[in-house]
Amino acid sequence: MLILYFTPETCSLATHIALEDAGAAYELRRVDFAATQQQSPAYTAINPKARVPALVTSRGVLTETPAMLAFVAQSYPAARLAPIDDPFAFAEVQAFNSYLCSTVHVAHAHRMRGYRWVDDPAAIAAMQRKVPQSVGACFDLIERHMLKGPWVMGDAYTIADPYLFTLARWLEKDGVDTARLPRVMEHRARMAARSQAAKALADEMAAPIGTPPA
Amino acid sequence: MLILYFTPETCSLATHIALEDAGAAYELRRVDFAATQQQSPAYTAINPKARVPALVTSRGVLTETPAMLAFVAQSYPAARLAPIDDPFAFAEVQAFNSYLCSTVHVAHAHRMRGYRWVDDPAAIAAMQRKVPQSVGACFDLIERHMLKGPWVMGDAYTIADPYLFTLARWLEKDGVDTARLPRVMEHRARMAARSQAAKALADEMAAPIGTPPA
Repeated sequence: MLILYFTPETCSLATHIALEDAGAAYELRRVDFAATQQQSPAYTAINPKARVPALVTSRGVLTETPAMLAFVAQSYPAARLAPIDDPFAFAEVQAFNSYLCSTVHVAHAHRMRGYRWVDDPAAIAAMQRKVPQSVGACFDLIERHMLKGPWVMGDAYTIADPYLFTLARWLEKDGVDTARLPRVMEHRARMAARSQAAKALADEMAAPIGTPPA
Repeated sequence: MLILYFTPETCSLATHIALEDAGAAYELRRVDFAATQQQSPAYTAINPKARVPALVTSRGVLTETPAMLAFVAQSYPAARLAPIDDPFAFAEVQAFNSYLCSTVHVAHAHRMRGYRWVDDPAAIAAMQRKVPQSVGACFDLIERHMLKGPWVMGDAYTIADPYLFTLARWLEKDGVDTARLPRVMEHRARMAARSQAAKALADEMAAPIGTPPA
């Protein structure tokens, strides 16, 4: 049985939806950021990075959303969540996910997690001021060059879709005018209408706060 | 014939070494950052992100180092550069590479590319001051928890090795005391002694500056 350590409103939602897409058997464990549970000895024994998500498998713990998504796609091939036997097509999916992870999520993180890269409060405030621009530029690129439509990779739904959905849910709080992103917003609505995303979101809200990560 | 767009001293070295490891046929095209060639119309037609690396294949262009590395491993299976048929083991390799891409490289980028996330010169300077600490913390985690040895994943050389080597070459300029990283430094020396890394580094230095990206 897989165990997914997650926190609501974080990128762990992407893997959570993919597990639903795959029809995987898994359990949820909510990590309470407000209680800094991610830094507890019990949790850092699972994930020394002190972040979510983490996926406990029979062979060990996996972290990093792009890797976890590829793991789900490869482990449940019948769900056809990625073109895993076509190196070029699979790399296109992975390149999209890597961009979300290393550029889009990072730009977003300068709003709430600026302390990772700077100590000075004035500098943290300066970072926060640029988030609408930096996140907006990322999504402009996705809107114009990367999102093929109707799904990220075109006609086939893949592991790139729940990941884009997850980050696109943060656009308003990041101060980005979503009116300039009609294709991204259509994708977000299309994703929200799927039962797998709706179930994942509902289950995250229903999970008890502060379940010990044991 | 593959074409790798690269710039010396950037993360494109990782894919370059992997292509050597794979025995792939490829050509190099040097992108001159000093002349901001990465922002030229000719280059952004290839890679709208205006960054290196980019890999031109017969089916289209790939970007993002983790995706390109997985593409090389899957396209040249005889070179055994990743456990591509074992979803868990492959995900471990990809999780390592994703961490390098989204956390280690990002921490490093706050030294030279702070303008991506902030406009205020004082804030950029504040970012630069924290790079030794933030990059150092990443490498402490690698040293203690992630690098199995002798190679990243243990006995088998994988696509994680040239990527770690590439980022570890930046440690001194990032202001990290390498004396506290004996295992990372042993890995770096082990990588540098391989003919594939030596050839890739020599070829990058020998490539004519400002070759037009055509």
